[in-house]
Amino acid sequence: VHWLRRQVGRPRGRLRVGIGDDAAVFEIGRGRQLALTADLSIEGVHFTRALHPARSVGHRALARSLSDIAAMGGIPRFAAVSLGIWRGTSRAWVEAFYAGLIALARRYEVELIGGDTAIVRGNTVVDVSVAGEVRPGRTLLRSGASPGDSLFVSGYLGLSALGLKLLKFRRGRLRESSIRKAIQAHLYPEPRCALGRFLAEKRIASALIDVSDGLSSDLSRICEASGVGARVRAHLLPFPNFSSRAVIRPTGPTRLASARSRANSALEFALHGGEDYELLFAVPARKVSDVPREFRGIGLRNIGEITRTREVLLIMPDGSETPLISAGYDHFRKNRK
Amino acid sequence: VHWLRRQVGRPRGRLRVGIGDDAAVFEIGRGRQLALTADLSIEGVHFTRALHPARSVGHRALARSLSDIAAMGGIPRFAAVSLGIWRGTSRAWVEAFYAGLIALARRYEVELIGGDTAIVRGNTVVDVSVAGEVRPGRTLLRSGASPGDSLFVSGYLGLSALGLKLLKFRRGRLRESSIRKAIQAHLYPEPRCALGRFLAEKRIASALIDVSDGLSSDLSRICEASGVGARVRAHLLPFPNFSSRAVIRPTGPTRLASARSRANSALEFALHGGEDYELLFAVPARKVSDVPREFRGIGLRNIGEITRTREVLLIMPDGSETPLISAGYDHFRKNRK
Repeated sequence: VHWLRRQVGRPRGRLRVGIGDDAAVFEIGRGRQLALTADLSIEGVHFTRALHPARSVGHRALARSLSDIAAMGGIPRFAAVSLGIWRGTSRAWVEAFYAGLIALARRYEVELIGGDTAIVRGNTVVDVSVAGEVRPGRTLLRSGASPGDSLFVSGYLGLSALGLKLLKFRRGRLRESSIRKAIQAHLYPEPRCALGRFLAEKRIASALIDVSDGLSSDLSRICEASGVGARVRAHLLPFPNFSSRAVIRPTGPTRLASARSRANSALEFALHGGEDYELLFAVPARKVSDVPREFRGIGLRNIGEITRTREVLLIMPDGSETPLISAGYDHFRKNRK
Repeated sequence: VHWLRRQVGRPRGRLRVGIGDDAAVFEIGRGRQLALTADLSIEGVHFTRALHPARSVGHRALARSLSDIAAMGGIPRFAAVSLGIWRGTSRAWVEAFYAGLIALARRYEVELIGGDTAIVRGNTVVDVSVAGEVRPGRTLLRSGASPGDSLFVSGYLGLSALGLKLLKFRRGRLRESSIRKAIQAHLYPEPRCALGRFLAEKRIASALIDVSDGLSSDLSRICEASGVGARVRAHLLPFPNFSSRAVIRPTGPTRLASARSRANSALEFALHGGEDYELLFAVPARKVSDVPREFRGIGLRNIGEITRTREVLLIMPDGSETPLISAGYDHFRKNRK
């Protein structure tokens, strides 16, 4: 990303936000700004045929991009879907894929406007581009956080990663309803479009990102873009309301236990589990009282604060501090969690 | 496409042109329209590592989408690039890929605004989305052709397919400069953005498409969308200025001679060769005199006319007529040419 940004140069002319935020923003006509994002969903990387029904693959592929627009404080309007389908794919799979995608698009009033299709020999690949509207002067970037700002996050962290683990091992020590909730969060995540728009319209947040790669990764992106650090308090993190120890004990064949499945505590899921598509945002001190405790049924939790020193620290319940190392999902790392 | 169009429904609200044209068009703000297109470039389908340098892969991936915007009469503005890279790809390849893409973007004043990247186990996949501006009321669709309109095409047809064949077999019976020209047309096609805009601004064309899949395929799309037929005169087709018989004789191993390489005459290349990215357009009789013989060095040739009967016919020099069967590149056909 850094290399590419250098090649492309700084945003200029009509381009307001270039490479390196959740979405790009450009001016189109007088006083109108458009946000554009594109997100890949690749079989074997973002989904597998064994664990993810086609309907979920379509849902998640669009949700990724909707979440990026939400993370700019924008309103998603149009989606283009490019689908490179593995040549052995059944028609039923393709129809269920589009059904999942179209159902989500309808709920968010996003128009599907085509895209491209091809048959491929390797794994199925989806790329979803979404164009959304943002109000000039209301765009929420990653780079606006200042020391002293409070850090908030919506919903639960780690629920999607827990759901994926439950899907893999098929058994856990959780109540049936909790298992369903986690699996649902993984297969059919809800992008927080209304919340992103609320934060932008009310000018509450100074910086905003969606938690797509895990709190540790996405928080470090806000800090890097803003030139700040952060302190996150472990006891304030919104875990799913399950027992926090030994959430799940693998019972399947151990060869299934990939590196990614090693996280076993709710804390690890919350810190590093990706694909929650919750919103993480910084709020200046004078605006903290404007943050509701919940927004349309989704809890908004203060989990720490922005600091001047550039470190990202995790404060444990006993008061000890440890650096919070970015360990979220990163496709360019050799060892994926 | 038909199935998907039914699922999605008719364009409504702000959406002016939905699935099934070169790009979708929607309204953004008062009196402003945006065209959006996304195009896949897949290793083994659209390019190979053996024949296409990385720089060409980047160039062609963007050219496909720029050409779609040109085919709406729009001005391309912003491009998002999603790249799923085969895990064994060298950094040099990735840099050359972006260099080719960025060089083309600069020449057309298109801003690169990010996208997504991932490492994949299978073939490399690129998806380029381009957003462009179109003037309301000036958008050129596939569906506007009427019986009696004249059919025009820009540049040469079949040059890119010839170039691909020359790349495969490394030898031919052509002069060196002709070989270079054909290979250049294949590796570095020029999208006809200025011409598309000219045809839209001057209200010359009634229907417009880019010749990305071959004349026979793309003409049948105009005819289907417009509910008309066409007559194409073989002797008017703009062949490259080479000998028209036995253009090239394979000298390489015959296993390289895929079905796609069977076309051997300039006529076959011109009718069915894809990836020329020339513009094919219909012009009402009263506007024909407004079509210049060439536009910025690119010839504009009248190759036939639109008819009421829904057939697409090829008129041979001896006056005989044969149905022009769509045989261009179609990823969903089992036997690719």
